Amino acid sequence: MADLIETPVLLLDRDRLDGNILRMRNKLMPFDVTLRPHVKTNKCLDVTERLFAGERGPITVSTLREADFFLAEGFTDILYGVGISPNKFAHATRLIEQGAKLKLVLDNLESARLLAEFACNIGQLFEVLLEIDCDGHRSGIAPQSTLLVEIAHLLSNAGVRVSGVMTHAGNSYDSRSIDEIEAYARQERAAVVEAARLLNEAGFEPSIVSIGSTPTALFTQDLSGITEVRAGVFAFFDLVMAGLGVCDVQDIAVSVLTTVIGHQPEKGWTIVDAGWMALSRDRGTAKQRVDQGYGIVCDLSGQPIGDLIVTAANQEHGIISSRSGNPEFIPELPVGTQLRILPNHACATTAQHAGYHVLTEGRRLGYWPRIAGW
Amino acid sequence: MADLIETPVLLLDRDRLDGNILRMRNKLMPFDVTLRPHVKTNKCLDVTERLFAGERGPITVSTLREADFFLAEGFTDILYGVGISPNKFAHATRLIEQGAKLKLVLDNLESARLLAEFACNIGQLFEVLLEIDCDGHRSGIAPQSTLLVEIAHLLSNAGVRVSGVMTHAGNSYDSRSIDEIEAYARQERAAVVEAARLLNEAGFEPSIVSIGSTPTALFTQDLSGITEVRAGVFAFFDLVMAGLGVCDVQDIAVSVLTTVIGHQPEKGWTIVDAGWMALSRDRGTAKQRVDQGYGIVCDLSGQPIGDLIVTAANQEHGIISSRSGNPEFIPELPVGTQLRILPNHACATTAQHAGYHVLTEGRRLGYWPRIAGW
Repeated sequence: MADLIETPVLLLDRDRLDGNILRMRNKLMPFDVTLRPHVKTNKCLDVTERLFAGERGPITVSTLREADFFLAEGFTDILYGVGISPNKFAHATRLIEQGAKLKLVLDNLESARLLAEFACNIGQLFEVLLEIDCDGHRSGIAPQSTLLVEIAHLLSNAGVRVSGVMTHAGNSYDSRSIDEIEAYARQERAAVVEAARLLNEAGFEPSIVSIGSTPTALFTQDLSGITEVRAGVFAFFDLVMAGLGVCDVQDIAVSVLTTVIGHQPEKGWTIVDAGWMALSRDRGTAKQRVDQGYGIVCDLSGQPIGDLIVTAANQEHGIISSRSGNPEFIPELPVGTQLRILPNHACATTAQHAGYHVLTEGRRLGYWPRIAGW
Repeated sequence: MADLIETPVLLLDRDRLDGNILRMRNKLMPFDVTLRPHVKTNKCLDVTERLFAGERGPITVSTLREADFFLAEGFTDILYGVGISPNKFAHATRLIEQGAKLKLVLDNLESARLLAEFACNIGQLFEVLLEIDCDGHRSGIAPQSTLLVEIAHLLSNAGVRVSGVMTHAGNSYDSRSIDEIEAYARQERAAVVEAARLLNEAGFEPSIVSIGSTPTALFTQDLSGITEVRAGVFAFFDLVMAGLGVCDVQDIAVSVLTTVIGHQPEKGWTIVDAGWMALSRDRGTAKQRVDQGYGIVCDLSGQPIGDLIVTAANQEHGIISSRSGNPEFIPELPVGTQLRILPNHACATTAQHAGYHVLTEGRRLGYWPRIAGW
């Protein structure tokens, strides 16, 4: 019996996944850019293969563990998107020796000096993208900074190849309208194109000019000067993306299957066996117009039930109640009822699971394992 | 070189662990109670063995996966602390057939009917604790409810053994003072002792009267009528517990080792390679008097550095800044510097890692693996 599967488990709707991939491919088709998807969202060979229709295209990774895994599966063109530190130089070297066309990222003189020194000592050819700060949200060099050329010279003098520049419009996740997303997209493009121009002027030939965020990638109007787009969450989508207006709730491809284990009727609570261990502690919609708690509650077919959300989460318990706080709208959900919870943040929720139970047209297709760790 | 270990990794200070275990053992010594630690916090054989000084004592688990794992390691007396649902009956049966003295938990007539029906059909002897609601925070039957005896009769008529009652003072985590914790401890004891009395009056002989939360266990003054204490986080402690006054920051046994990868000097930011994937998204201190962000920043020896905390976290990036917002207090932390981050919530942070790098007196002792999943 279908409803006897032990819960919680992570579900992946392959049809929605394919639709989401197609949407990004179609969006980028008119532009002369390469899609270098961020596999940190899926951490899964099967999903990544679908991103490339079976090919081994260029990827972005968030950990060297991902690089190890995908290299062993034949993905050689790998951008490690987190600033490199000396304790990872040896691991990066091993990856290159094993055949990876590995691109490292850095944004400061200290890291550049350390890498240059290491590169000279071991005689290894590293390839680096300089990280540009397009919106002040995290890392990166200001696009007009003289530091950019200074770092590029320092690296190239040590035999490190400066292949280009990259940025990430992280602030686009806080947009309040599609107009704002489009403005972030312009800002993201402008920053990295300006940085590439400075490097060009200084005699470098940046062959990679890389941007990446799902909201900006899906709403950009202009990619002139850009060579590649990194984005990850577009394949799955989530409630944060839906809250931004980037996708519809019906596009979200991942959900957590859970089972009703009890009720507190006078409070309007239904208790389920998915707590934060299965859903993650991510509360990304808390700052959006509509706070979805720990996720929207759907029936087994994936249709949202009234205005039910997971309003509280302990380790292995979730408390479902009405978003409006009106217990009259709570439908009867007997013990044993299975429900699907749509996640706030696909990267965080999927990371709580060892793999995906994959569905197509409502039927089970198989199990796709994920990797984890560093 | 010690500072060349790849980060992020989870560290466990075995000396602090042993001190924390000793504190709980000493606290409970004067009372006639059994400690049935919740292994959901550690999910690790080595840690659980230390909880019992090498013995195989009674444990509480949050998943049947934990039950499988610990049973295979010789722990037979297992309380599964999450309300049982029909899709887990078969798994519970397998555990019992493999030798587990498994205690199930339920709090409603529906679950009781379903379990009774299943038990009759397969002729299996299940053992059940009825879950009591002592503070309205989650699941459980009100301690004076007539439902209690009704459920007990229904179960025992089907051959299910009603071994007793259990509760969890979850609201103690929101206490504002030790006085308040002591009040929750009295309330927790009173609720479950009252429920046991009702069962006794109705002719049942509840041999287990079980309470459990780290704050109440450490500050209770009276355990008369209680037979066992479940608690988990006491072994590691965390910033939520420190914020409650239950432990000192210096008692926290787990931390995440991370490396500086860059700076945004004009903002007073230090960027490290521990984001929410390594720290978890838990923000348990957000509602406390002092909000610790995603954790307190310590040097490599474990000493907090000024008022530095992780103020923001992306998947693999953490942003460290001053809690007061005053960038003048930021010490120099060059790229490559290794730091330790103390977690808000030990259960959540440790769950992001495959195991513990164990230290004693500052030296590395080994690696203790964890289990995960359901």
